[in-house]
Amino acid sequence: MHLGHLVPFIITKWFQETFNVPLVIQLTDDEKALWKDLKVEETMRLARENAKDIIALGFDTYFAFRKCPEMYQNIIRIQRCITFNQVKGIFGFGDSDVIGKIGFPAAQAVPCMSTTFPFIFGNRKIQCLVPCAIDQDPYFRMTRDVAPRLGFPKPALLHSTFFPALQGARSKMSASDMNSAIFLTDTPKQIKTKINKHAFSGGQGTVEEHRALGGNTDIDVPYQLLKFFLEDDEELEQIRVAYSSGQMLSGEIKKKAIEVRKGESAGKCQKANRILHFQTLQPIVEEHQKRRKLVTDEILREFMSLRKLEFS
Amino acid sequence: MHLGHLVPFIITKWFQETFNVPLVIQLTDDEKALWKDLKVEETMRLARENAKDIIALGFDTYFAFRKCPEMYQNIIRIQRCITFNQVKGIFGFGDSDVIGKIGFPAAQAVPCMSTTFPFIFGNRKIQCLVPCAIDQDPYFRMTRDVAPRLGFPKPALLHSTFFPALQGARSKMSASDMNSAIFLTDTPKQIKTKINKHAFSGGQGTVEEHRALGGNTDIDVPYQLLKFFLEDDEELEQIRVAYSSGQMLSGEIKKKAIEVRKGESAGKCQKANRILHFQTLQPIVEEHQKRRKLVTDEILREFMSLRKLEFS
Repeated sequence: MHLGHLVPFIITKWFQETFNVPLVIQLTDDEKALWKDLKVEETMRLARENAKDIIALGFDTYFAFRKCPEMYQNIIRIQRCITFNQVKGIFGFGDSDVIGKIGFPAAQAVPCMSTTFPFIFGNRKIQCLVPCAIDQDPYFRMTRDVAPRLGFPKPALLHSTFFPALQGARSKMSASDMNSAIFLTDTPKQIKTKINKHAFSGGQGTVEEHRALGGNTDIDVPYQLLKFFLEDDEELEQIRVAYSSGQMLSGEIKKKAIEVRKGESAGKCQKANRILHFQTLQPIVEEHQKRRKLVTDEILREFMSLRKLEFS
Repeated sequence: MHLGHLVPFIITKWFQETFNVPLVIQLTDDEKALWKDLKVEETMRLARENAKDIIALGFDTYFAFRKCPEMYQNIIRIQRCITFNQVKGIFGFGDSDVIGKIGFPAAQAVPCMSTTFPFIFGNRKIQCLVPCAIDQDPYFRMTRDVAPRLGFPKPALLHSTFFPALQGARSKMSASDMNSAIFLTDTPKQIKTKINKHAFSGGQGTVEEHRALGGNTDIDVPYQLLKFFLEDDEELEQIRVAYSSGQMLSGEIKKKAIEVRKGESAGKCQKANRILHFQTLQPIVEEHQKRRKLVTDEILREFMSLRKLEFS
């Protein structure tokens, strides 16, 4: 996983803490097996690794593999409502696509139906909120069409802003290009190097030009990262003004994004026991790695077992 | 269920008793939900009723609803191997079919893969024999294509002969037409009336014509039923000769098919504890009803639980 994968979890965690709601995270290992050239065993192994990363963020959640019979039954209920013509229109499937892809949208949709998890919700049909990345939108729009036909409220969607690749918004983060993203396994040194060498800068060619013209925060990746992780809006605004006026240099804004913040902020984070409240890259990733090491297979098994969740 | 549903079980039971092999019976409630206008709850209720009928036949079996995660994983493995073009060719699916139908062939195929039932077979990939009706053939031909690609032996198929409707081979048994078949819930009197009034006869219009021309066993439904249920081939041959020569009348062959057999035969059946060894309609159905009453919800639950089977 790279840093961008954490983004939907920031707001998700806020929701859970603020409203004390139960959280189910679906692991779409089946999707990966159908779309990528990966064996089912391998996609399940990867899903378990991802789950460990998510557990390390300090969630109280149930991880939904496709494993209880009620989930299969709800998949069938959804699959009864959608024709090939519809998924062709929505997802662009064609006649030479494997049948697993054609049926899959129902599997992606099914966690929106609370009866899929009787061990959490009993048989109550309750409202679901889906924080997700924008590329998942077609699945859940389809789900919103189907839900009322099955007697469920339409799930509400919340899309997170696009998280830029290090090379800028127009390039793509890729697991095969180590320099396209900051991965959750990177060392502090790697993070520093990646930001300093590979993060797309909105600054000018020379210090003189920069002082005269100022930096462009709209395309500056270090600034974009600060927008995601720095909680203090006042400080962010100060940075924006300083950088775009030319007062702050590219190297300086990069340093702001990278480095450990001393004193109060880090202390607050440790007290709150939350990785995501760290506000710059090195401490976020470092703390994450520490916590992830504590997530044993035993803990993972517990998170994946069919279990009740505490909520009010 | 009607009598015709028992036919594949006759040979299945013989296999299990002769070779001491484990037996899994798949309940395709999902198929019924996708093809017929029935709710999932209703198809599951019907499947449970059917399972009770099968338990009453005295099997040692596991009833496979789609409920363990390994089954879902194998469904995905199969769905990765089959394109829409292929199921279009095999099953005639079109663009306006629901996606559940398009994906379903993989669900029908999956019990052929032994790893679908790790609680019975562990992770051994063993040979499977599928006794089934001829209309299920396309599913398992497809399965034979896919199995080697997933490292499994091709399942072997065994098709039971077509079981005629009471109105003859060209008509169709239908649950909505009570007179098209003998149902497992029929009373002895209903069975007698159905055979006498509704079973298509290969006899002649009058006794005189029948004595002169003889009956046609190829189209005579009572004779067809005897072919299925009468175990004694010699006796069957005697009946055939007598009936086709005109010596035996339609009413007499009907009586042979219907009635309780006294003495040795019934005694043997009760000793063997097997309904299917009764050889005529009234005792088969009557004994079935007796045993079915003994199948409680508790027993059904046990048969449906993920459990080991005894076999050598």
